Amino acid sequence: MVEQKAVVTPWEVTGDINYEKLLTQFGLQPLHTDFSHVLFRRKKIFAHRDYQPIAQAIQQKKPFVMMTGLMPTGKFHIGHYILAQQMVLYQKLGAKIYIAVADVEAYSARSQSLEESRTIAIDQYILNYIAMGLQPENCEIYFQSERSTDSAIANQYYQLQNILASHVTFNEFKGAYGEITPGKLTASLLQGADMLQPQLLHPGLPVVVPVGVDQDPHIRLARDIAKRVGLKPFSSTYHVFLPGLKGGKMSSSDPTSFVALTDTPKEIKSKINKYAFSGGRDTVEEHRKLGGNPDIDVSYQWLTFFEEDDAKLADIYNRYKSGELLSGELKAILIEKLTAILSAHQEKRIEAKSRIHEFLYQK
Amino acid sequence: MVEQKAVVTPWEVTGDINYEKLLTQFGLQPLHTDFSHVLFRRKKIFAHRDYQPIAQAIQQKKPFVMMTGLMPTGKFHIGHYILAQQMVLYQKLGAKIYIAVADVEAYSARSQSLEESRTIAIDQYILNYIAMGLQPENCEIYFQSERSTDSAIANQYYQLQNILASHVTFNEFKGAYGEITPGKLTASLLQGADMLQPQLLHPGLPVVVPVGVDQDPHIRLARDIAKRVGLKPFSSTYHVFLPGLKGGKMSSSDPTSFVALTDTPKEIKSKINKYAFSGGRDTVEEHRKLGGNPDIDVSYQWLTFFEEDDAKLADIYNRYKSGELLSGELKAILIEKLTAILSAHQEKRIEAKSRIHEFLYQK
Repeated sequence: MVEQKAVVTPWEVTGDINYEKLLTQFGLQPLHTDFSHVLFRRKKIFAHRDYQPIAQAIQQKKPFVMMTGLMPTGKFHIGHYILAQQMVLYQKLGAKIYIAVADVEAYSARSQSLEESRTIAIDQYILNYIAMGLQPENCEIYFQSERSTDSAIANQYYQLQNILASHVTFNEFKGAYGEITPGKLTASLLQGADMLQPQLLHPGLPVVVPVGVDQDPHIRLARDIAKRVGLKPFSSTYHVFLPGLKGGKMSSSDPTSFVALTDTPKEIKSKINKYAFSGGRDTVEEHRKLGGNPDIDVSYQWLTFFEEDDAKLADIYNRYKSGELLSGELKAILIEKLTAILSAHQEKRIEAKSRIHEFLYQK
Repeated sequence: MVEQKAVVTPWEVTGDINYEKLLTQFGLQPLHTDFSHVLFRRKKIFAHRDYQPIAQAIQQKKPFVMMTGLMPTGKFHIGHYILAQQMVLYQKLGAKIYIAVADVEAYSARSQSLEESRTIAIDQYILNYIAMGLQPENCEIYFQSERSTDSAIANQYYQLQNILASHVTFNEFKGAYGEITPGKLTASLLQGADMLQPQLLHPGLPVVVPVGVDQDPHIRLARDIAKRVGLKPFSSTYHVFLPGLKGGKMSSSDPTSFVALTDTPKEIKSKINKYAFSGGRDTVEEHRKLGGNPDIDVSYQWLTFFEEDDAKLADIYNRYKSGELLSGELKAILIEKLTAILSAHQEKRIEAKSRIHEFLYQK
């Protein structure tokens, strides 16, 4: 198999990604923590910029801020789950959580109305966050189009957007966003305000923005602008991609590339059996003889995110590699695991519906 | 004298301006009203777009809105006075007055801090408006960087800025603003929000934005965008330029081109005697014989704005044209007139200082 040159930008992720190389290419630091969570101990979150103040705050049990956003389009899938897990984790570790609903960006990038964004944000994202354990205390979810019921906070936010505009060039935007329009430009500035306002609201507290590694150009740009307006570049962490079912990048616009958190057991089973790229051999005989390749097998890759038991995971790896475990059997293990996780999650989602008002101010 | 080709754009005004030609060039309508105010009856406000709803509201004594802005840089001079007179006039006629302090624009176009803009806006502009008779009732003055203490109004304003961004192209901006930067672009969108929010705050009420005729490209752009987002293109009126002392355009950045509203009698006298472009002849003898040219004489032109008595003005015109009145004598008439107006104004400015809190919410 010929290695395909990897392209990792905010608007394209293709080829065989070598995360080691990305560290050097993007100028990131490898992340080492002693957190027991799967995402950290398995290096799914593998890199950072300036993470030290966050690690220190956690170690000393001091407050800090985690800032993130959601794009209210499509279905909430298990790729989004990776980031949402970090919200819940950081909140437990003492972080104040800010979540920006990028409804202005959805409007400019996809012509989606603010009303539709609100509906999708609540139904697809916020309900899932609540079901995953996000607590309303120490958590602020807001819409870019309507920052706050506190006018001082709202004014400060949009003032920041307007101020940032004078400290960035068109070429820098093009570098981070590719083709640019007036709508995308203002949405990008608003994203900058999302990432930088927390340090105005909590002077002195460290702020971390966790992202998928393809988002680093946005982070770099916002950190650069921060310095120019006398603010501190926030910390950031980078997670690897949960691969799409068929390999390649998982995409909200391609339902055969993901499992949604609201998929039924039947849908989970059918999608994985039908689409999950296999590292197994063409025939059972060949597989028994030569063994499968877990490193390119999407079902196995997914299990590395969801099977928390290291011994169990190692056993699956070895048995698949030796040929003892067939592709269909590996898929069955993933199906069982995901069905268990999502069934429990979906029950909690039902309860979550009655708690939505605790997380959002009333319109 | 060779006629110089006129250039009238927001960033350049030069040459001999033919206002009749501008009507056709910009696609404006000539304005006819029965208002007795000098600015209207002498056609200083000479053109409009869609003025009919405003004329009707005034005639039927129904509420309407006048929206305008101020750029908080430099000194408030008698060029600004022309626009400020319209605020006071429209307020008396039943308009709700909105005044946007363009501190975000001053930041992006001139790197002026928001704090400095606030100081200049109050000292140079708002105090003069109050001295001229602006009343706090039915009047809202706000800063672009801090729209309102009412979060619903603030959120709506900046939401409008962000929404407008998706309905305009870079080329349209270049057409209206010349060279464009990210900062100028966002400031322009905010100006759009300034002009369009009043109709969201007062559904159904007609809105008028009075401007100098060089500002029409901004008006055209904002009216065009309005249609695209389902809003109504507001009405606009256009006034001629009060010429600079030396002829040409009056400019805040050139103190020899204007008289400031805070200039002392001595300064007024000295500036007019020293700089006012004269339509008189080279020698007294020649002047007596051939007469002066009031049509190019800046002192006379200024009097057409400030001498309200039509008979008196006609008498000055005729005596100057016949050569009876010398240039120095014409200047003396203007000096006397302006000194009287500004002395009275400056007394009112002192009183105005104690009333500023009635016009601005406290920080």
